[in-house]
Parts: sequence; structure tokens; C-alpha cells
Amino acid sequence: MSTVTIGNSEFDRDTAVVRRSPGVYDTQLSEGWTIIQAVNGGYLLALMGRALGDALAHPDPFSVTAHYLTASVPGPAVIRTETIRTGRTMSTGGATLVQFQEDGTEVERMRVLAAYGDLDALPDDVRTTAKPPALPPYEHCLGADSGPGGRPAIPGSTRIAERLNLRLDPATAGWAVGRPSGKGEMRAWFGLADGRDPDPLSLLLTVDALPPTAFDIGLTGWVPTVELTTHIRRRPAPGPLRVSITTRNLAGGFLEEDAEVWDTEDRLVAQSRQLARAPLGA
Amino acid sequence: MSTVTIGNSEFDRDTAVVRRSPGVYDTQLSEGWTIIQAVNGGYLLALMGRALGDALAHPDPFSVTAHYLTASVPGPAVIRTETIRTGRTMSTGGATLVQFQEDGTEVERMRVLAAYGDLDALPDDVRTTAKPPALPPYEHCLGADSGPGGRPAIPGSTRIAERLNLRLDPATAGWAVGRPSGKGEMRAWFGLADGRDPDPLSLLLTVDALPPTAFDIGLTGWVPTVELTTHIRRRPAPGPLRVSITTRNLAGGFLEEDAEVWDTEDRLVAQSRQLARAPLGA
Repeated sequence: MSTVTIGNSEFDRDTAVVRRSPGVYDTQLSEGWTIIQAVNGGYLLALMGRALGDALAHPDPFSVTAHYLTASVPGPAVIRTETIRTGRTMSTGGATLVQFQEDGTEVERMRVLAAYGDLDALPDDVRTTAKPPALPPYEHCLGADSGPGGRPAIPGSTRIAERLNLRLDPATAGWAVGRPSGKGEMRAWFGLADGRDPDPLSLLLTVDALPPTAFDIGLTGWVPTVELTTHIRRRPAPGPLRVSITTRNLAGGFLEEDAEVWDTEDRLVAQSRQLARAPLGA
Repeated sequence: MSTVTIGNSEFDRDTAVVRRSPGVYDTQLSEGWTIIQAVNGGYLLALMGRALGDALAHPDPFSVTAHYLTASVPGPAVIRTETIRTGRTMSTGGATLVQFQEDGTEVERMRVLAAYGDLDALPDDVRTTAKPPALPPYEHCLGADSGPGGRPAIPGSTRIAERLNLRLDPATAGWAVGRPSGKGEMRAWFGLADGRDPDPLSLLLTVDALPPTAFDIGLTGWVPTVELTTHIRRRPAPGPLRVSITTRNLAGGFLEEDAEVWDTEDRLVAQSRQLARAPLGA
């Protein structure tokens, strides 16, 4: 029987924050959640989300906007939060993530503005016209070990890949073998590798964990996020998530990437949109 | 010949800000942009956008996130900006809008986090798969004076309506006569009543100027915005804009509302998403 639970897992340990003073938190950016050299933006978002959930009067992220300023590096970091408003059903807060150079100079990595509430206090009405993504069964999708000869089906050896159960819909994985669909779509099953179930904090990781849609448009290279806004709409049910990401407007050197995350009860638990720079030399 | 130009129009006068000290601006919230008693959120966003465009090293809003904290009222207000980061091609800034009660107490109205750049410096590549909304010709759409007997076709007498040339697609205006489509869609032609052409600042108004999609789902009443994020993707060409707004996930007492704004050159010039509270007693 697995001893991995929400609160006692790799993800929880690697997003732990230690309150140094009211609203100020020490943390360690783990090497385990990097893509090439860079710390994953969704992982950083979850870390900021945890600090804000402690600092604010309400526990759950409802809307979280992050601006990525400079590239975070594994190692110590400090999160400073600001309580902007405490309402009856919602709180508004800000947060900044800083790291320190060898000479002691402080460098800001990201800035966050967020609304928090209590997901468990929401009514259970649902009038969703959105449909879950059409995704083949988990075992027919492509994971890190399902390439020919046991090689990774998805290129770009990254530390974060070891921590995720990410299985791409073969229909949106053609880019990995040089045949992008051109549609700007990516669909996948998503779980944490150690079996930890999803919660609102891990959803902040999930929305930025797939390969970029730019790859499916035929672009290659780094797709830096300028701004990422995530709405958490419901506490996810246990079990694997289905994630769909789409880009409809690649223009002027930028693109938007929309993510939807669905749980095992067919509920749309998170929606996100990011503005990213299109890779150069596309 | 019209003397209304960008910079010399009702919208420009009503979103003027006066620098009091570096990064701090005095302004007047105009009564002319209210819905019932409340000052329109898009108008406020344009005001904040103008202050940030002055304070930051780059002129144009690329991504602007606003959290609406308390209801603004017509009258004096102060905008305080913060320069978070100044990069080569983009700047990041924050802003807060405050008003003062009779006893002098300061009340924060909204908080903004934004990335600014230079739209005119972007390359002209376009690989957009999104299509402009299918909208009947302007003269077949419903305006404030096109109801039976010259009465307003769109209910809710609001001051802002006098300042906009808003013409709703009849297919998405059934809610005004008690027959909402249930789809959560609204499409309209959009212009400023005095003929001022659109620019990046007025797009910040445009994304929050239509009647809420909630009306087309059959809900009535106030739909307060919690958070609104807008991406300005291109300087709009002169002439009327086409705006499409959609809601796909009404659940747990909240809904998202996505807006797309297209210009006369069939370019997607702005995309926005807001998280709003669903009206009570729906």
C-alpha cells in the first residue's frame, strides 16, 4: 500500500515553505523540477501558491496570475507575501519570489497576484458546456518510456519528467518525430510519478507541465512564459487528470496557450491562459 | 469633418491622469462610464493602463491583470504605480487605485499587475488559427436605439451606453426579450460613440463592455468581476471592432468569460479572460 498522500509526497516536500516572519517564507527550489537548466514555471507557481495559502485568510487559490521576471535557479529563495484585502468569502494577495546572487544582491524571479477562497464552501451547481478532451486510454498514450526500444518518446531529457506521469495523445505527439500537426494542440494524461493525488496546489503545476503547443505548430526551442493566469474551479477528484492545451493566436512573436484540466469525475477543475514568447528562428 | 482623434476624445479626457510625483497619478473617475451605480471595470482598466504606460519604460500594455477589490465611485482617485522590472523589450509594473472616504480613510479599489512592451516593434508574422466571429452587418445588429418604438433594445439604462456604439448580434440578444440562447455567447460590433478610433488603451475598455454572457445563459443580475486578464496583441486598425465573448464553465457559483476582439483588418487584436461571480438567485 502506498504511503504517498497529499501532504506527504515528493511534490509536497519540494514545495515546502518555512515561515520566517509573518508573510515571509524561506524555501528551496528543488533541482528535481527543472527543464534543462530552468526551474519549471508551474512548480514555482505551486510554491508561491502554498505560501499565499498560509499567509491569507482563505486556503485555496481561485485565480493566480504570475509574471516571470528572471530565470529561477535551484537553491534557496525567499517568498514575501502581501495581504491586499481580506473579505468574507475571498482574500486578495500578492507575492514575490527572490533569490540572492553571490555578492548578496537580491534578484526578483517572479511576481504573483492572486484571489483565494474556500473551494469546499462553493455550491455544487454545474452548467458547463465545455467537454472533456477526447483522449485515448492511458495505455495507448505515449510516456517517457514508450519510445522505440524503451527510449523516451518525448525528447528533451528533463529532471521534471521523472516526477510526472505524463502520457501524450499520439495524435498530438507527431512533433516528437518531426511531424507536428500544425494545429497548436496538445492533450495528455497527467499524474505525479509517486502516485500523489491532485489537489488545488498541484493543479498550479499541471497547467504548465506539458510540452509547449508551439512544438505542435512546428516551432522548436525555448518558449518563455511572460504571464500565466490560472483559475482553480474545483477540488479535483482522486486519480489521473486529463489536460488539453491549445494555441489559436501565434502572431507578432507571441502566442497564448490555454489549458484545461479535467478530473476523473469529468469536471473542469482548472483553466489557465499564458502569454509566451514564440521561439526565435521558427 | 470630425475633430475626434486618439488623444482628443471623450474617452481620452475621461481617462486622463495627472502625474503628482514619480509614479503617482491623480485622476477623476467619470460619471459617464457607469453601469447603474458602479464605474465600469473596463473603463477603470484603461485608466490604470494609461498611468502604467506613463510610468513604465515601454508604452503599450501586452498583458494586464486586474483584481477588483471594492466598488469604485465617480469622483477623485489616486493611482500609485510600481516599476517591478525594466527589461530591454518589456517592462513589468504594478498599480493600485485608491479612493478616500469622507473621514479621509483610504480604500483600495483595484490592484493591477502588467507587462508592457512596444507593439510597433513586433514582427508582423501571423499564424492565427482563430477565426473572426460570424457577425451580421452592422446595420442588422441591435443598438441602444433599435428596440421597438425607438426604445432601447438592450435593457439596463446605463450611462456608459451613451458613450459606446455597441450593436449586438440579434442571435445573441434573445435574453433582452426573455429568450436567452443558453449557449453563453455574445457577439457585437464595438465603437466609441464620438467616433474615436480604437487603440491599445481603448481595447482595455472593449474587453469588458458587452452585457455579461451570464445573461445569455439565462441568469440575471450583477456579475461582479473578481479578476480580468487582457492580452493586447496588436495595435488595432481604424474602424469598428468585432467582439465575441463566451462562457464555457459556469460552476460552483463562478464563471469565466473569454473575450476576443478583432479589427477591420481581420486581426485578433485582444484576448481576455475574467473570473466572475455568477449572479445569485439564478
